Amino acid sequence: MNRMMEAYFDNSATTRCCPEAAEFVNRALTCDFGNPSSLHKKGIEAERYVLDAQETLAGYMKVRKKEILFTSGGTESDNLAVIGSAMAYARQGKHIITSQAEHPAVTEPMKFLEKQGFEVTYLPVDERGALNVEQVRQCLREDTILVSIMYVNNEVGSVFPISEIGKTVHEGSRALFHVDAVQAFGKYRILPRQQGIDLMSVSGHKLHGPKGIGFLYVKEGVRLIPQILGGGQQMGLRSGTDNVPGIAGLAAAVRARGMKVEETADRLRELKKRLADGLLSMDGLVLNGPPIEEGAPHILNVSFTGVRSEVMLHALEERGIYVSAGSACSSHKKKREGIIPAMGLDATRQESALRFSLSSDNTAEEVDYCLKVVEDLLPVLRRYSRR
Amino acid sequence: MNRMMEAYFDNSATTRCCPEAAEFVNRALTCDFGNPSSLHKKGIEAERYVLDAQETLAGYMKVRKKEILFTSGGTESDNLAVIGSAMAYARQGKHIITSQAEHPAVTEPMKFLEKQGFEVTYLPVDERGALNVEQVRQCLREDTILVSIMYVNNEVGSVFPISEIGKTVHEGSRALFHVDAVQAFGKYRILPRQQGIDLMSVSGHKLHGPKGIGFLYVKEGVRLIPQILGGGQQMGLRSGTDNVPGIAGLAAAVRARGMKVEETADRLRELKKRLADGLLSMDGLVLNGPPIEEGAPHILNVSFTGVRSEVMLHALEERGIYVSAGSACSSHKKKREGIIPAMGLDATRQESALRFSLSSDNTAEEVDYCLKVVEDLLPVLRRYSRR
Repeated sequence: MNRMMEAYFDNSATTRCCPEAAEFVNRALTCDFGNPSSLHKKGIEAERYVLDAQETLAGYMKVRKKEILFTSGGTESDNLAVIGSAMAYARQGKHIITSQAEHPAVTEPMKFLEKQGFEVTYLPVDERGALNVEQVRQCLREDTILVSIMYVNNEVGSVFPISEIGKTVHEGSRALFHVDAVQAFGKYRILPRQQGIDLMSVSGHKLHGPKGIGFLYVKEGVRLIPQILGGGQQMGLRSGTDNVPGIAGLAAAVRARGMKVEETADRLRELKKRLADGLLSMDGLVLNGPPIEEGAPHILNVSFTGVRSEVMLHALEERGIYVSAGSACSSHKKKREGIIPAMGLDATRQESALRFSLSSDNTAEEVDYCLKVVEDLLPVLRRYSRR
Repeated sequence: MNRMMEAYFDNSATTRCCPEAAEFVNRALTCDFGNPSSLHKKGIEAERYVLDAQETLAGYMKVRKKEILFTSGGTESDNLAVIGSAMAYARQGKHIITSQAEHPAVTEPMKFLEKQGFEVTYLPVDERGALNVEQVRQCLREDTILVSIMYVNNEVGSVFPISEIGKTVHEGSRALFHVDAVQAFGKYRILPRQQGIDLMSVSGHKLHGPKGIGFLYVKEGVRLIPQILGGGQQMGLRSGTDNVPGIAGLAAAVRARGMKVEETADRLRELKKRLADGLLSMDGLVLNGPPIEEGAPHILNVSFTGVRSEVMLHALEERGIYVSAGSACSSHKKKREGIIPAMGLDATRQESALRFSLSSDNTAEEVDYCLKVVEDLLPVLRRYSRR
């Protein structure tokens, strides 16, 4: 029997760590295993990995090395950016602007801040998941200290106009601009300084790097109240022994997979178009989110009218195709939150929505296999659903 | 020319990741790379690593699987334990007891809590770094909500009477008992339930596991206010994608290196005694901390009277011997804190103190090499220092 074909289309949940990153992780675990805080050679060898990683990332984004702060991942980066900056600038004001499209790693810290007396404005999105720069401008106030908007939405792939928002924020206020770039980093050429970004969250494992590592870009001069206290590592902003293997692995992944951003994005966009064209030509399949060309190159969200998300997800899974119903991160929540309800989709469309998320590991062959499988499954599953 | 012998005696700063752990890390990075929150097979495969790790650790400590909460390391565990429990029980009282011997990952959160209106009692240690159970009893109050005492001190190897303190705390108050076991785990057979421990912090990389991973034992029923908010992973207590490679690596390290605790401790104690006997027979070398047999089996702190710590550290480094002056985690601090000043040692003894910390990777041959080197170095360095 032939081995079943597999198509992993859940790359926005996590990606496979690339060999280059795994190699660096292994080397830092077993050879150059020192503690960068140690004063001797073993410490200095380990510190070299951290400095090299900072150089890779800083060069990549055209920022300074000391503006890169390593964390345990995207969630910690978002928490530190949102809570850490709000606490640091609370004397200047207590108003914050964010959107209804954000990841729970941003919205949950916002809810926490509301309990602490901060006022948070949640900008709505339209039925296609879009957000208007004008909305940001209108909400800016004298006491606005932070605007936090994601670059690419993780569920439907909306791409928010970050450069314009950055410009608007800095022209109209003294607020800081935080960008959750977890789904955008490596798919877009992001230049924080040119785009008016003061704080930016990135996760390693969404870009073929290791899990358990991420970073926060912190523009020089921006103050943060540290959230994890202790030995004073990373200039006191994030204590704890540096996760050298993770840091080295993240930088290796960026070198291996992040450099040719435009090429990668073009290839992903082509695959996504192929998948979208096939799916949307089928009866009852509806696109959620922005038009194909306007959305992120790797995220496609489609409702399979008449088939519940979980049913389709598991039917695809049996055929080696892995997708997501909602984001992986929201599978712990009872109530659906995030951009999909904010877009105002009706219940049947919400309940039948699936996310396909691609990476440079995917192929056209996988897409075609997936289309064939969906075509075969649809009539069967719809018959079941009607009973 | 022969390759220079190396002796890595800085295992309390970090250890070399063992092959078994590195193997698991690699497998979870590159093969079973899913996100445990994903609903499909790839997610379930990844979740299996997490469940297996919980089973390993829970079995090892004879606790329940759901009492294991994974974090990014010892520092985060300490922060979550101290701040998370203080915030959760603040209505019951605002008094906390800790010691002057604690790691900055505990004392810095304590300072933060003091600014939030908590009152913290810092128990002193004697000139040998010992702490008396009676001191704990006397300080317990009606409004004491937390007692946080480390198991093994990281700088001089004092071993605190955890079981007796646990008993005292629970007999005399409603307070929780948190233990920073970062330096003790794997060297002592720790059974939290029998020892009256409610919260216990452990770090992976101090026990031949990966960096960037640790756990907090949280006794069933103990409430914590989460410090990292988001997707609600780990029952809402610590959001962020589970660091599956780290978690799997930590459990693998415990299976490979943590099981034969008594054997490991005996071997380490023998090496330590060999090192101590040799060093303390030399002129002007003084033991800091508890008597050899009473201290932790892997930590030895000695002052080299007449030679500054950094000078000796670098002279040893040139000969392939790696030790520490103070803890690695305190190398970022300008002012010396922690147990050494708390012991009341005079300035010359403080300034010439070095820590040798062993692991099961070390050999008698390395110890003998180190003794030979110190013997050769001492007169030379002392001559320099006199000038």
